[in-house]
Parts: sequence; C-alpha cells; structure tokens
Amino acid sequence: MKSQITNALSDFFFEYETPRQVLVRNRRVGVVCRLIQLGVLAYIIVWVFIYEKGYQSTDTAVSSVFTKMKGVGYTNVNGAERVWDVADYVFPPQGDSSFVVMTNYIITEGQKMGKCPELPGKHNCSSGADCEGGSFKRQMTGVCVNTTKTCEVLAWCPVENDHNIPDPPLLMSAENYTLFIKNSVTFPLFGVTRSNLVEGINNTYIRQCLHHPKTAPLCPIFKLGDIVKESGFNFTTIAREGGAIGIVVDWTCNFDVDIKHCKPTYKFHGLYGNPDEKDKAKASVGYNFRYAKHYLEDKVPKRTLLKVFGIRVDIIVQSLARKFDIIPTLTAIGSGVGIFGVATVVCDLMMLYILPKREFYKNMKFKYTDTQIQHDSESLGLDTSVYYTLEANARQVQDTGQSNDPDSEEASTETDASNK
Amino acid sequence: MKSQITNALSDFFFEYETPRQVLVRNRRVGVVCRLIQLGVLAYIIVWVFIYEKGYQSTDTAVSSVFTKMKGVGYTNVNGAERVWDVADYVFPPQGDSSFVVMTNYIITEGQKMGKCPELPGKHNCSSGADCEGGSFKRQMTGVCVNTTKTCEVLAWCPVENDHNIPDPPLLMSAENYTLFIKNSVTFPLFGVTRSNLVEGINNTYIRQCLHHPKTAPLCPIFKLGDIVKESGFNFTTIAREGGAIGIVVDWTCNFDVDIKHCKPTYKFHGLYGNPDEKDKAKASVGYNFRYAKHYLEDKVPKRTLLKVFGIRVDIIVQSLARKFDIIPTLTAIGSGVGIFGVATVVCDLMMLYILPKREFYKNMKFKYTDTQIQHDSESLGLDTSVYYTLEANARQVQDTGQSNDPDSEEASTETDASNK
Amino acid sequence: MKSQITNALSDFFFEYETPRQVLVRNRRVGVVCRLIQLGVLAYIIVWVFIYEKGYQSTDTAVSSVFTKMKGVGYTNVNGAERVWDVADYVFPPQGDSSFVVMTNYIITEGQKMGKCPELPGKHNCSSGADCEGGSFKRQMTGVCVNTTKTCEVLAWCPVENDHNIPDPPLLMSAENYTLFIKNSVTFPLFGVTRSNLVEGINNTYIRQCLHHPKTAPLCPIFKLGDIVKESGFNFTTIAREGGAIGIVVDWTCNFDVDIKHCKPTYKFHGLYGNPDEKDKAKASVGYNFRYAKHYLEDKVPKRTLLKVFGIRVDIIVQSLARKFDIIPTLTAIGSGVGIFGVATVVCDLMMLYILPKREFYKNMKFKYTDTQIQHDSESLGLDTSVYYTLEANARQVQDTGQSNDPDSEEASTETDASNK
Repeated sequence: MKSQITNALSDFFFEYETPRQVLVRNRRVGVVCRLIQLGVLAYIIVWVFIYEKGYQSTDTAVSSVFTKMKGVGYTNVNGAERVWDVADYVFPPQGDSSFVVMTNYIITEGQKMGKCPELPGKHNCSSGADCEGGSFKRQMTGVCVNTTKTCEVLAWCPVENDHNIPDPPLLMSAENYTLFIKNSVTFPLFGVTRSNLVEGINNTYIRQCLHHPKTAPLCPIFKLGDIVKESGFNFTTIAREGGAIGIVVDWTCNFDVDIKHCKPTYKFHGLYGNPDEKDKAKASVGYNFRYAKHYLEDKVPKRTLLKVFGIRVDIIVQSLARKFDIIPTLTAIGSGVGIFGVATVVCDLMMLYILPKREFYKNMKFKYTDTQIQHDSESLGLDTSVYYTLEANARQVQDTGQSNDPDSEEASTETDASNK
Repeated sequence: MKSQITNALSDFFFEYETPRQVLVRNRRVGVVCRLIQLGVLAYIIVWVFIYEKGYQSTDTAVSSVFTKMKGVGYTNVNGAERVWDVADYVFPPQGDSSFVVMTNYIITEGQKMGKCPELPGKHNCSSGADCEGGSFKRQMTGVCVNTTKTCEVLAWCPVENDHNIPDPPLLMSAENYTLFIKNSVTFPLFGVTRSNLVEGINNTYIRQCLHHPKTAPLCPIFKLGDIVKESGFNFTTIAREGGAIGIVVDWTCNFDVDIKHCKPTYKFHGLYGNPDEKDKAKASVGYNFRYAKHYLEDKVPKRTLLKVFGIRVDIIVQSLARKFDIIPTLTAIGSGVGIFGVATVVCDLMMLYILPKREFYKNMKFKYTDTQIQHDSESLGLDTSVYYTLEANARQVQDTGQSNDPDSEEASTETDASNK
Repeated sequence: MKSQITNALSDFFFEYETPRQVLVRNRRVGVVCRLIQLGVLAYIIVWVFIYEKGYQSTDTAVSSVFTKMKGVGYTNVNGAERVWDVADYVFPPQGDSSFVVMTNYIITEGQKMGKCPELPGKHNCSSGADCEGGSFKRQMTGVCVNTTKTCEVLAWCPVENDHNIPDPPLLMSAENYTLFIKNSVTFPLFGVTRSNLVEGINNTYIRQCLHHPKTAPLCPIFKLGDIVKESGFNFTTIAREGGAIGIVVDWTCNFDVDIKHCKPTYKFHGLYGNPDEKDKAKASVGYNFRYAKHYLEDKVPKRTLLKVFGIRVDIIVQSLARKFDIIPTLTAIGSGVGIFGVATVVCDLMMLYILPKREFYKNMKFKYTDTQIQHDSESLGLDTSVYYTLEANARQVQDTGQSNDPDSEEASTETDASNK
C-alpha cells in the first residue's frame, strides 16, 4: 500500500505530459500561422506591455487642495474710491479647492425688512387683485402701488435692481491677482505621498516664480489672467458675467522609476460651454450668487446685498499611478497564451477545411476512437477479437504499467491505423 | 552557415505545429464535453461580452458641480413679519456642491461678551465651589448665581436656549424653493466632456421646466419638497430638526454609441438612517449648526446667533463610462480560451478515470516514453538494440532532416506501439 | 440532406477531441516541470485567490461627510477676557468635510477705507516718485509719508501689522475641542450603504465616548489634541502658525462576510511636509487666511480683519469593497490555465533542446507532414503511388467516415514513420 503511494507519487513527479504535435510543412498554412503568432506576440509585447504597460497595477490618489489668492482690486464708482483685498473678494475665505473670485458686482446698500413696490416690469398691476396670492419667489402684500404700477412685496427694501450689469466690469484688476495652489496626493496602494511643492520648489523659488506652461511648469503660483486666457475665455467677457474654470492638476506617475519624477502638470479649461461659442446660444452662462453683509443701524437690522459676478475656480485633481505588479503581468501573459491558442485554432480551421490536402492533414492530426469499432473492424475484415485483445491488453497495461505483448501492440497499431 | 540560417528561418516560417488530437467517439463524454464547451462559450459571449460588456474599458469622471437655489421664505414670529431670501437661508452662499438650506432656527439676538448664569438644568450649583475649574465646553467663573442656582459663565450673553425647537418649523415655505444644478463631467481616458445641460436643454426650456422623474427627467431644476419626498422623508419632520439628503447624478455612459446618448439621471436618498425607521432609535439624527452675525452697537461688539436647522444637500456625482478597447477584448477572449482548456481537463478526467473503457482511451491519448525502456523492451522480448537503433536513427533524422531508413522507422513504430 | 445535418450534429455532440500526449518519463524534466506547475498552481491559489482575492470584484464608494466641533476657547489679551465658541472659530460654520479650526489670530479692529502709510519696512520711500505706479498688491497714491518714510496707500486703514505672530498661540484651549464626524458611504456596484455610526454606536455611547485607536476605535468623536499628536505634530507649533491634517476614514470591506463587519478605521497624517523635518527647510509651511467682519459705525462702513492661523482638517474618505464575482474568478482561472501552458512550453524547450536524448523525445512529440513527401518517399524507396493512394483513401475516409482498406492504412503508418 505504502509503496503504491510512493510509486504513484514518483510516477507523478518523474513524468510529465506534453502534447504530441504534427509539424505541418505547408508554406501557405505555415506563413499564415506564423504571421498570426507573430502578430499576437507583437500585440502582447508592444501593445500590452510597452504601450499600455500591462505589467503594472494602477491606483488613483486621495488628495487635498488648499488655495491662496493674492492681490488688491481697485474700484472708482462715481468718485468713491475703494480697494478690495482678499478678505473682500474671495468666497469662501478659508482657501478651499473650489472658490469664487469676485470680478463684478451689483451692490444694494442699506436694505431693511419692509414693504416696498417691485421694480418696474416685474409683477405689473392695475389693482390690488393682481397682487393676491403671490408665488414662492415673492411675498406679496396684495397692494398695488400707484406710483410704479407694480405690486408691493414684503422684502428687504429697497429691492435689488440687477437689470444692468456694470460694463466694463468693476474689478478688471482681478486679472493681476495671483493664485497659489498647495496640493497633496496620497496613493494608498503604493503608500506614496507627494506634494505639488516637489523637489526644487523651495521658499526662494516660490517667492519670485509665476507659472508658465513652458518656462515654469512646476511653479504653483498662477496669474488669474493667464488661467482665463489658457481656458480659452476672454477676460473682459468672463469678468463681466462670471464663469467657471477648472484647473486640472494631473498626477500621472510611474513608480517604477524614481519617485521624484512624479510631478504634477496643470491644465485649464472652461467648465460650462465652449468659450468659443456664442454666449446666447448656450443655456445658463455666467456665474453669480448673492451675498449679504448684515449690520445694525439705529437698532434696525440692515444689510448690504451684493450680487457677485465672478470667476469660479475648481481645482480638480486627476491622478493615475502605475507600478510593476506580478498579478497583471501574469494575467497579461496568461491571456496572451490563450490568444496564441486562438491563432492555432485559426490555422487548424484553414488547414482542415480550406487546403486541398485537408484530408491528409486531418488524418495526421486526428486519431479516431469509436464505439462503432467492432462493427467497423468487421467491415475492414479484421477479427473483432483484435479489439478485445487490445482492451484486455490495455487493462494489463494498467496493472503492470507496461504492455508486454508485442503482438497485441502490433494489433493496436493496426487498429489505430484502421481508424484513421 | 548562411544557408543554415536561411534553412532554419524557412523551416520556421513554412511549417507550423498543431497538436495531434484523439477524436473520442463516446456519447456520454461527448455530450458532457460539448455541453461544458457550449456553456463556456455562452458564458463568454452572453455574460462577458453582452451583459458585462467585457470588450470595453471603463473610466470614471472628474466633475464639478454648481448649485443655485431660488425662492423666498416667510416667517411671522409673534407678529414680526420677515422674508428670507437666498442670501439669508443658503450656507455657504456661493453655490457649492454641498450646502444647507435653512428650514428652522433658534435665534438669540444681541449677544455680547460677558458673564451670565447658565440655563436652568445645566451646571446646577449650590455654592461657588460647584463652579470651579470648568470644562472645555464652558468657561466658568467660579460663581454660583443665586437667582437661577446655576454657575456663572464667561460667554456670549445671554446664553442660547435651544431646549425648544420651533414646531411647526418656521420656514415650511422651503418646500417650494427650487434648486438648479449645473454639473460638468470629464472622462479623461476618453477625452469627453459633458454637461448636464445636454442637447435640447436650452434657456427656454430651463425657464419653465421642473424636474419630474417620469415627465421631465433631464430638467436640472428641482423642487426641494420633491427632493425630500423622493428621499423618503416627511418634509415637516426633516424641516424641524434638519437632515441630510444626497442627490446622486449618475452618468453611466456607453461611448460606442453616439455621445448625445450620454445623459445624467438623478437619484435622491437620505444620507443618514433609513427615514422610515423611528428617529429615536438612531444615533445622531437631525442636522444643525450655529452661525453668528456680528455687529457693533454703541461701540460694543455684539452678535446675533442662529442655531440653524436645515436640509443639507450633497450633490454626489457618480460616473462610469465604457468604450470599446482592444485590450479588455483580447484579455476576455484569451482567458475564455483558457477556460476552454479547463473544459477539456474536466472531460479528460471523466474519460480517463470514470468511463468503463478508460484504459482504452488512456492508450489512445497517451504515448509513453520511458527511461526504463531498455528494461521494458527486454521484458517485452524485444532486443534492446531496437531502441538503440531508434536513437541512432533519431540522431540521423536530425542530421538529414529526414529519416531515410524505412526499416528503422518500422522499428520506431513498433517501439511506439510497445509503449502504449 | 436532412440526415446529413443530423449526422453532422450527432457527430459533433457525440465525439470530443482531446490532445494526444506524450508521457515523458524523465526524472529531470519531470521534476522541473512538476515544480513549475506546482508553482503556478500555488501562485494562482495562494496569491491570486487567497492573498489578492482575485475571485472578487472591487468597488469604491461615493461618500458624504459632516462634521461638528464642540468646545469653548478662552483668550485673555491685555486683560480683555473673551470666549470663542464654535460659531467663532470654525470656518466655514456649516460642518463641511474640510474646515479650519482657528488656533491663533492677528486682529486689526476698526479698519475703514482710506489712505494711510504702509508699515515701516514695506515700500520705503524718500519722495513721492518712489510711490508711483504701484503693484497689483497695493494701490499706491503716489505720496511719500514723511513720518514713516513709507508710501501712502489706498486701503483698509490702519493696515494690518502681521509681523509678530502671537506666541504662545492665543487659543491653546483648542487642544480640548472635540470633533464629531458623520460619514456615509455608498458602494453603487454592490448597492450597499453604510454609515460610520455602525451597529452598537448609539446615542448613549456617542454621548460619553472619545476616540482612541486601541480602546475606542469606532467612536466618531475625536479630541483635536489627539488628532494633532497622532499626525506627528506638536500642538503648540501647529497652533501658532497653522497647519493641515488629513483624517482618512478607511472603508476596506469584504462583502462576502456579513455586512456588519464593514467598519471604518481612522488614520491621521500631516498633509504638508513631514512634521519631523525642520520647518524652515520646507516651502510654505503653516496655514492662514484673512477673514473680515463688516459693520457700520457712525454711518461709516468698517471691518474687523482677522488673520486666522488654524488647523485645517480634511476628512478624506478612502474606500475599497470586494465581493465574489464570477467574472474575475473565471478570468483568473482562465489566465492561470494560460500560464500553465507557459510551464509546458518551458519544459518542452528543456526536453527538446537540453536533454541528451532530445532527438528521441523530439520524435515522440512531433510527427512530420511534408510537402516534400513525394520526393522523400522516393528516396525511401517507396512508390509515390502509396502517397496518392493514401490521399485517395483519406478522401474515402471522409465519405464513409471510416477507412476500410487495411493496406492503405498500413502504408499510412509507414508514411507516418518515414516522416519522423
């Protein structure tokens, strides 16, 4: 018993199976087949491994972004000079990855809660009946104001008049503001953390650099006018009605080379609508929101309402890191070998069904074993006993591990032949 | 030498190997094997290719979201009428993808820095000793105020009393507010940028449409009441204590068809806890935060503190684009061919170990080559010289590329047979 | 015709092909080959299936995060006591996933729009000519102020003096603030939604727990001092100049086990620069922004400017869920079978080119079919008619499905042999 197991084990370990092959010497099939195989090989090596880097696993990063604007704006409205610093024109102030830089505004000062008529053109009325009910957009009092012929509303009064957007925009100086971006990315799969302040970007460099796609691609300080221009917008246009710009920080890294080659690239694009298209054709252009500063004047709560038109900047981090990994490598090789099998199938089909000598090849490739063998043997004039002898011998083979009757083997050879 | 290389090359190109096969004619094995193979084929075609679209590569988008609320709220607290417009009830004001719509509030007006007793019930005391030290939650002065029997604290006074949440919520009109969502997605792998203002969603349509899952699924304007209802919440409940709702903008796109079919779908769900569950069983229901408006009154800095209860809306962009790609196609085919191999293995195991005529099939399938051949040959009554002749011939074959001794070949055939 | 189709179909279903194999009994090749095969098998089972869980498909989550700080800060600047509550020290107030906790500040009270000299050291001048033009950072009036020898600027006056950052930081009490994180994740592929308030984290537990990596890893309430310490920072250092910390909520889930085992883990790390490095060597340390509170005093708009130094906290959700899926399983198996094929190729190369008896094995493995057969046959002394007979018979075989001329088969066997 024990020796049987030992035998089986040694049999298993000391022998190995390899498929028997027919070496078909045919120019047409040979060339076609080799070309297909070379094609598959070239595909695996060139495309999967070199071009698509199929030997690497990929990971995307988790990231965090901080921003800081610098610069001072200046307005002179009807002789009233004013400067606007960062605390005034950036929303929100704390340096988020998505923020708005005010470039134009409509200011309504000294609003207080009360009743006042609507602007001419909105909610026109001839009597109080026209001002009943009201909508979710206005809280009407049911009174028609005679002087303006508009409904009276309960609102922050006076109501804002935003019919005319200042043109040119009030804060054209925004073009010279600078934006500083800090971005940290972590690739959890590879355990790598990088910052956009890469090697060589130190305090001295930051103090004097300005981003330029060619000459200073790694400088994290951007001029707002440059950003707008590279996005394809015209600064005056976008400053007037507002707009949205995406700054894509692209981390495409290959960690098979030194980590210090993993550097960000910056791309800019308009987020809504192609800036080259005519504005009016697109739905919902511009970007604005309302913002109120509340205060108390003579015990009365009041507010200054700002309708802010501005450039909304979204910092979008896009990342893809790659590193050698054994699993995708072997998966690529494994499925490549599988496709090699497809090549063989194609060549076989060609050989077996198209070539003139297909029958000959079919005989070479296939050996038939048939339950109808007894019947066939008879038709061949062979004694059925040959088959049974064969089977008996086969059983014997199993017992001894070796056939030892040369005659039966001869018969076997013949049977084999007779079934071709 | 040169001709040798030419020969080797022409040999390589003009010949091709194909495995020799046994065609087993057995109903049971045949049917089982064909069924397995058909199963594998069906799996590859139906499942991998049609259902899972394994011929496509996938990509997720980077996106940016802007929002804009519209509508006016109205409160009448003890006869004091007030309206609340967007600048008052949306936090933050600039239209982020995550924002809060105030639906209820507790207002504490005229707070100024000073010392005042805590609310009854909090930090009860009988003497100053009970009010020593203090915690990180309150800055105590060490004085016990006799009138309220609570500790005196240094704080914005008077302290906020948030024991009673207004019920019904003060800003039930929030139900009628509308939300406008602008969303831009970019699939970097495919170089495609889409906006949720797809073809046909123009200014005219936007001005009058309102999102409805059935009749207006692409309208990007949503009624807040609808959003709450579709999330499974009751508006009054969520408006009173606040809550969080996720609006999922789902971009599932197939770029093998025209890009204009890539349209978003909108889904709504409560972010914390199943709204159908009883509130009290869940930890930390509701959503609120405190917000202060600062002002100066008679040179004294004061503030109005608002405890804001509201509906927090998170716009979550979920994206998956697919496009035909040669790599996943060939990987799918390649590993499919590999699984075909598994089918053959299963059938072989069945044929070689289960069928009654397994020995016969084993002989058909396998040819044995054995280091023990000399010994075996003897036991077979064959002269060992046959084997040596064979080997010698084999060497000759290599030299000439062709065997030319029919006798030795005969012997080879016999040896072959004898090892079956 | 019909019976032909039936025959073809029954032929197809009742027969199956299996490659003919040579069982090579050679210790060296056998052992090497079996070891390679066992290696491949071990790789597939242990690495792909057990370690990398290749039988599962993966998904990342869409998530939303809410935060809430608690605690009161206390400052005593020149005898002026003040407390700072959540509405004062958290920016923005509404509980975003990214927020700033103020720990230090430089306050400039009572700024109003006007003209005033720059701080000493900035824009020094000797005459008005030095103050012409101006930059985008300052709006100069072209006047040199004699008393300070600096240019006069149009700005919020008096200008902020931020030369000296308060040390120790004014709000050291921030160390005791607590942060409550609510996080909801949805895995769209698996349709699973989880919250970080998992089973067992109820209201009672939340009220009294405090996160600790060992003893309370699931408590969603964190002490700010602990967060800073675990990130590797020194609280006093980071509180003085500000800094950025990432809190990673890691959802690594296996949905093949019960969903309740899917729990978050919390990790903390500094986002910019290794905190252990010397500060001055790194570019752009610290974190600060400017924030203004506007008010009206005697009809004059004024503001209080705060330069806020603080700890910026970014809650970063990282997620990876896995679940059994038939596609990756079969892909892994399929490409594993493919790699098995590579093992056979390696062994074949060894057997056919390295072993001393390589010619013998070559003969066993390959059968040659040759277009030069006629020529060769002649050289073998065989009549070419044999070959043609063979072909004729082969065609006959196709017709009858069975060869029935033993003689021709004999010839076939000989031709077979002669081509070895």
